[in-house]
Amino acid sequence: MSEYSGKRVVGGFDASKQVVVFAGPCAIESEEQFEQVCACVASLGLHWVRGGAFKPRTNPHSFQGLGLRGLQIMNRVANKHRLLTLSEVIDAEHIDVVDEYSDGLQIGARNMTNYSLLKTIGEKTAQTKKLVFFKRGMAATVSEWLSAAEYITSSGNDNVVLCERGLRTFETATRYTLDISAVPVVQKQSVLPICVDVSHPAGQADLVPALACAALASGADAIMIEVHPHPQTALSDGPQQLNLEQFASLIGRLRTLAAAMGKEIV
Amino acid sequence: MSEYSGKRVVGGFDASKQVVVFAGPCAIESEEQFEQVCACVASLGLHWVRGGAFKPRTNPHSFQGLGLRGLQIMNRVANKHRLLTLSEVIDAEHIDVVDEYSDGLQIGARNMTNYSLLKTIGEKTAQTKKLVFFKRGMAATVSEWLSAAEYITSSGNDNVVLCERGLRTFETATRYTLDISAVPVVQKQSVLPICVDVSHPAGQADLVPALACAALASGADAIMIEVHPHPQTALSDGPQQLNLEQFASLIGRLRTLAAAMGKEIV
Amino acid sequence: MSEYSGKRVVGGFDASKQVVVFAGPCAIESEEQFEQVCACVASLGLHWVRGGAFKPRTNPHSFQGLGLRGLQIMNRVANKHRLLTLSEVIDAEHIDVVDEYSDGLQIGARNMTNYSLLKTIGEKTAQTKKLVFFKRGMAATVSEWLSAAEYITSSGNDNVVLCERGLRTFETATRYTLDISAVPVVQKQSVLPICVDVSHPAGQADLVPALACAALASGADAIMIEVHPHPQTALSDGPQQLNLEQFASLIGRLRTLAAAMGKEIV
Amino acid sequence: MSEYSGKRVVGGFDASKQVVVFAGPCAIESEEQFEQVCACVASLGLHWVRGGAFKPRTNPHSFQGLGLRGLQIMNRVANKHRLLTLSEVIDAEHIDVVDEYSDGLQIGARNMTNYSLLKTIGEKTAQTKKLVFFKRGMAATVSEWLSAAEYITSSGNDNVVLCERGLRTFETATRYTLDISAVPVVQKQSVLPICVDVSHPAGQADLVPALACAALASGADAIMIEVHPHPQTALSDGPQQLNLEQFASLIGRLRTLAAAMGKEIV
Repeated sequence: MSEYSGKRVVGGFDASKQVVVFAGPCAIESEEQFEQVCACVASLGLHWVRGGAFKPRTNPHSFQGLGLRGLQIMNRVANKHRLLTLSEVIDAEHIDVVDEYSDGLQIGARNMTNYSLLKTIGEKTAQTKKLVFFKRGMAATVSEWLSAAEYITSSGNDNVVLCERGLRTFETATRYTLDISAVPVVQKQSVLPICVDVSHPAGQADLVPALACAALASGADAIMIEVHPHPQTALSDGPQQLNLEQFASLIGRLRTLAAAMGKEIV
Repeated sequence: MSEYSGKRVVGGFDASKQVVVFAGPCAIESEEQFEQVCACVASLGLHWVRGGAFKPRTNPHSFQGLGLRGLQIMNRVANKHRLLTLSEVIDAEHIDVVDEYSDGLQIGARNMTNYSLLKTIGEKTAQTKKLVFFKRGMAATVSEWLSAAEYITSSGNDNVVLCERGLRTFETATRYTLDISAVPVVQKQSVLPICVDVSHPAGQADLVPALACAALASGADAIMIEVHPHPQTALSDGPQQLNLEQFASLIGRLRTLAAAMGKEIV
Repeated sequence: MSEYSGKRVVGGFDASKQVVVFAGPCAIESEEQFEQVCACVASLGLHWVRGGAFKPRTNPHSFQGLGLRGLQIMNRVANKHRLLTLSEVIDAEHIDVVDEYSDGLQIGARNMTNYSLLKTIGEKTAQTKKLVFFKRGMAATVSEWLSAAEYITSSGNDNVVLCERGLRTFETATRYTLDISAVPVVQKQSVLPICVDVSHPAGQADLVPALACAALASGADAIMIEVHPHPQTALSDGPQQLNLEQFASLIGRLRTLAAAMGKEIV
Repeated sequence: MSEYSGKRVVGGFDASKQVVVFAGPCAIESEEQFEQVCACVASLGLHWVRGGAFKPRTNPHSFQGLGLRGLQIMNRVANKHRLLTLSEVIDAEHIDVVDEYSDGLQIGARNMTNYSLLKTIGEKTAQTKKLVFFKRGMAATVSEWLSAAEYITSSGNDNVVLCERGLRTFETATRYTLDISAVPVVQKQSVLPICVDVSHPAGQADLVPALACAALASGADAIMIEVHPHPQTALSDGPQQLNLEQFASLIGRLRTLAAAMGKEIV
């Protein structure tokens, strides 16, 4: 719907007609938890699942993820459901293992200016052209974000999806302030597709549906949504994750809106 | 579409089914200019037109509006087209004249903390219950904004429409950062309806359609859009105003989206 | 000490040699309270006392000040101690009464963009050239603030003292983020003197001394400090007000620093 | 002078009596450039010199530093002048080489949330207890910054100096908004000493002296100042670097202020 949309591809899908939803729990916690999420995601006809194995936490004493074991769970369960996988790299030493077990590598907001990591990931995926999912820093301008993305693309991989995830502002009613304007701004200034993570800025599950619908209508090329079988017992970011019913209901609403835009949710 | 929408009324319309568009130029500049806008707005089946007669400008040497003459033009031309009118009050001494000539009184972002003005407007409209359109300050939290609105409602008029218009942040790609999350947050915390002004945060016309669609999809109860017959020669805020064709095209897109949401644009 | 300091005058004092401290309680609460403050301020050899009679409060149900009675207390007690007085105008209708009872008129941060109020105050004091103490809005750039000040100066009174009082940011350890850089920036760009209000940004009394010393050393032409005989029972902003002993001790520290800078505290 | 100063040590000096100045160019550019800086710094009786060998740049096409050769120049020239050295690590793979050639390791603002780097540096310096100079992220709260510092200290090295370097805000008159309040806030909440980098927030050399004096007077335990023999031809951050005369003059002013505070500049 954007005035600026050229030919954008997200995870194998043509963004002019298809909007990819990257869904999954904040962190992979157990085989059972991830199985429930994958079953739900696959049953809704979606194709990508996300899950964190290495978690960069503000407090060094918080849960830091299952690591390699988490990646193995993700890989095994997603394969069973024929889903593609996305997981975050927080450290150069984990690039190879994340690369081995997942179909896309996420770079988190806290690492947007870790230029050394960006370059290494760009180089390591230069041959495979594997999807690099690149989040905006919480205090980065769009211009700085696009410059940082060049550390990846100029290393040889331009299969980069940008992801807006909210800015740090004075407002405390939400966890971050979602910069919805970043969608048309990026589409005007860059050829890279743009995703909107609607869970982190919301910080509370009940705000997520409104933000997801807004992201879709703004012309976003993809949407990231956190979903967990039992958010109230999640080991990280529980309050912002949808449960399975809420997620299924939201996908229904998004499908209706997308149809009105001549697009489909995949 | 929101989880929280109770019974909200905006300018005489039921927000659960109808989304009011407040359209018009930043400033009323001449009878001819306003006639062209009203003809366009009315022909599209919309009901409200906005226009500034008194303009609060950062620089004391900028164009300050036509004043009383502007209000008279607005009133005469809008009546001819059977449109309702909204205009800003920037000063206690102009309340009576704006009240006389228009159907709604706008309080701008720069006056959100001018509590004395809020109270006086609340008192002066306590009998008529005329629409008070109350913009959020560019550095106000939702909580402070809702507290400020009580200066109006507790003075006797609760026909208040809140209007989100963008926050001041570090991002310079847009004029302000539209806080789209304010829509579900306000609907969760308040009974007052919420409008989104999509022109001021955009700052550029080509970003406006994406923001307007996002606002609608987020569940906003109303949308404000600036439109001008010749934006390139506008006396204020030219770059962010749509021309008549762009506006008509956007209304078409909004109608399609609204239909998918079970709503209509009025 | 600044590279840019020209001939600046603050409340009758030559800012190149003398730094005025504007001290006093947030709000005038009683004759006894104000007497204790004035006795302390006068005994320390200071010349200006501040006190709020009309209080602009975020919440309409909070204490709104003693109004006219507060001004009369301030005037009577300050005269007895031969102190000059500063009080805030929050409304055009109170300009005359504040003008009658005080030696300086303060315009608060929440009214920085109430251009109508600025112009009226400029006009009403054009003859007397009474001190206008003009606070920066919490989300205003220095450039916007200087433009707004022209609403006053171009109305005929250039006896304006600018006052930095902290910006709204994401940091919550302080009430506002004091923009200390505004001191040299203003001194480079304007001929108007600049004061720093160190109490509002701090939000807590124990941070005030460090900020006051920083303000002085940065080259500020004046400093505003809130002091109250019993901060713990203050009707507004208690946590950020110094008690009398803390205030006297701070003035001592400022005197030592000022001496090293070739200045005196008045 | 702070209410909260306990026993803090900065680079071998007792912060209750001595304020360390970390001075030097943004980037080490040549032996000649660094020689001029060291000669100046040593002649003023200072003890620490800083210089960047690996430069994290927003734009991947900008000058990225001399790397190892830069470190060798720094080491050789500083030794000759008996100065201690501080240089930034931007990447885990460079920790060893920076550790070999310098007396302190700096972690830049862009890496504050690169927790993996913090942990590795903490572990690698656990035996030597070498100085780790830890800058605050431009959008980090003090609380998040102190949590991040625990990634270093809990890995075994608590010889950490925190460094405030300005926040990202809407103000554009300066490069960043120096949060001077962070000095007393950190001294109240942490046992770690706090330095203020006055060059990055200023962004222009002529604002640096006012900020340096403010930092000292606020009670900062150390001050970082960029100095370059020929700022107008510097390969990075030229506008904010002082030339040698400006630097010497500023040290003189700081000495006078420090004396009034019972401290000395080292």
